[in-house]
Amino acid sequence: MIFRQLFDQESSTYTYLLGDESSKEALLIDPVDSGLQLYLTLLDQYGLVLKYSLDTHVHADHITASGLLRQETSTLTGIGSRCNALLADLQLQHGDQLSLGQHIVDVLATPGHTAGSVSYLMNDRVFTGDSLMINGCGRTDFQGGDPGTLYDSITGQLFTLPDETLVYPGHDYKGYRVSAIGQEKAINPRLAGKSREEFIAIMNALDLPKPDMLEVAVPANKRLGIEAYPHG
Amino acid sequence: MIFRQLFDQESSTYTYLLGDESSKEALLIDPVDSGLQLYLTLLDQYGLVLKYSLDTHVHADHITASGLLRQETSTLTGIGSRCNALLADLQLQHGDQLSLGQHIVDVLATPGHTAGSVSYLMNDRVFTGDSLMINGCGRTDFQGGDPGTLYDSITGQLFTLPDETLVYPGHDYKGYRVSAIGQEKAINPRLAGKSREEFIAIMNALDLPKPDMLEVAVPANKRLGIEAYPHG
Repeated sequence: MIFRQLFDQESSTYTYLLGDESSKEALLIDPVDSGLQLYLTLLDQYGLVLKYSLDTHVHADHITASGLLRQETSTLTGIGSRCNALLADLQLQHGDQLSLGQHIVDVLATPGHTAGSVSYLMNDRVFTGDSLMINGCGRTDFQGGDPGTLYDSITGQLFTLPDETLVYPGHDYKGYRVSAIGQEKAINPRLAGKSREEFIAIMNALDLPKPDMLEVAVPANKRLGIEAYPHG
Repeated sequence: MIFRQLFDQESSTYTYLLGDESSKEALLIDPVDSGLQLYLTLLDQYGLVLKYSLDTHVHADHITASGLLRQETSTLTGIGSRCNALLADLQLQHGDQLSLGQHIVDVLATPGHTAGSVSYLMNDRVFTGDSLMINGCGRTDFQGGDPGTLYDSITGQLFTLPDETLVYPGHDYKGYRVSAIGQEKAINPRLAGKSREEFIAIMNALDLPKPDMLEVAVPANKRLGIEAYPHG
């Protein structure tokens, strides 16, 4: 497998490029609009054809490149069906499977950060978006977010994967790149040894400022980033 | 690939079991004597035959199971040739390659924690022993350790691997399980943005107490843990 973890400085977003060397099929997870040329260059360099451009949810802090990638390539775009991003080709639901050559990508519904959040599991790597982050998790105070639901997603879905499963988050703000399910179960300060009630209390006490890009990014991402900044 | 990351509570040591599902060949990296039965049970459960039991160096804080595993299985034992552990079947040198089914394990000489320390690279995973740890590195004040040499090993060998290469250390004391080369380059407090001279100064100032097991473990590990506690 070709595997690249790319970082958008402005929004601290990780984008993942996975490529199957046999079939030459590739997918991107959570591409950022400003990275479009980089993705196209990498696909060209590796000789890969983009099969899927997937988002883990409707982002509030950056604009997806999925729509632009569909214009530039033959890719299918995919996102959780509960995201209400109706332009996406694939309205993904828990249990859906995508193929990348001989590899299978399992769609896991992991709502809580947003109502439509999903994670993508491929072999021993899970791409968790903002559902589970390294030593943290996404906020739960807008876009249908709910802390109890997020706790259930993390403990009921993600924490049931083998301890060695690699966790690749949608963001990191401290330079961490990768974790493992066993690590997050053991030391994530919001989750390790915490009850559902304690987790809900932690999340409800965060009192975070509204993201700068919320009003622009959410409606734009529901259109997959096409006409992200409409005229007038 | 079957991949298990096992933890010895007493010495905070990580042991790695890798198994190739096609050939049924397995290897262990840094097995601990008290884990012998666990390793044999896992090999049996997965239907694997232990081909190699490898150590990254002569440990000072626990006793290897390599010698015991050689008694119980058909495994070859391997360690860096400069470790002076002459009972090991394989006296490994930089550039040596081992095969596990269709997979290749590259031996990288990474001296500095000890004079004979090596790392093992398999696909996109590097097993660094105490040469490079998550947010840290092994001490350099005994067993031929040398901070300048360790700096050269880390920057000249390990940090030249792709950023996505997964770093699996020999120990962690805070619950971290895995890192990536790009992460350690970016945020390891002893290395990120540090010159060779600064690294040497940091290491020389550590002033750590001598490990409890130093006098027992080092001579025992030179015998691969056989007769670890001699009579009389």
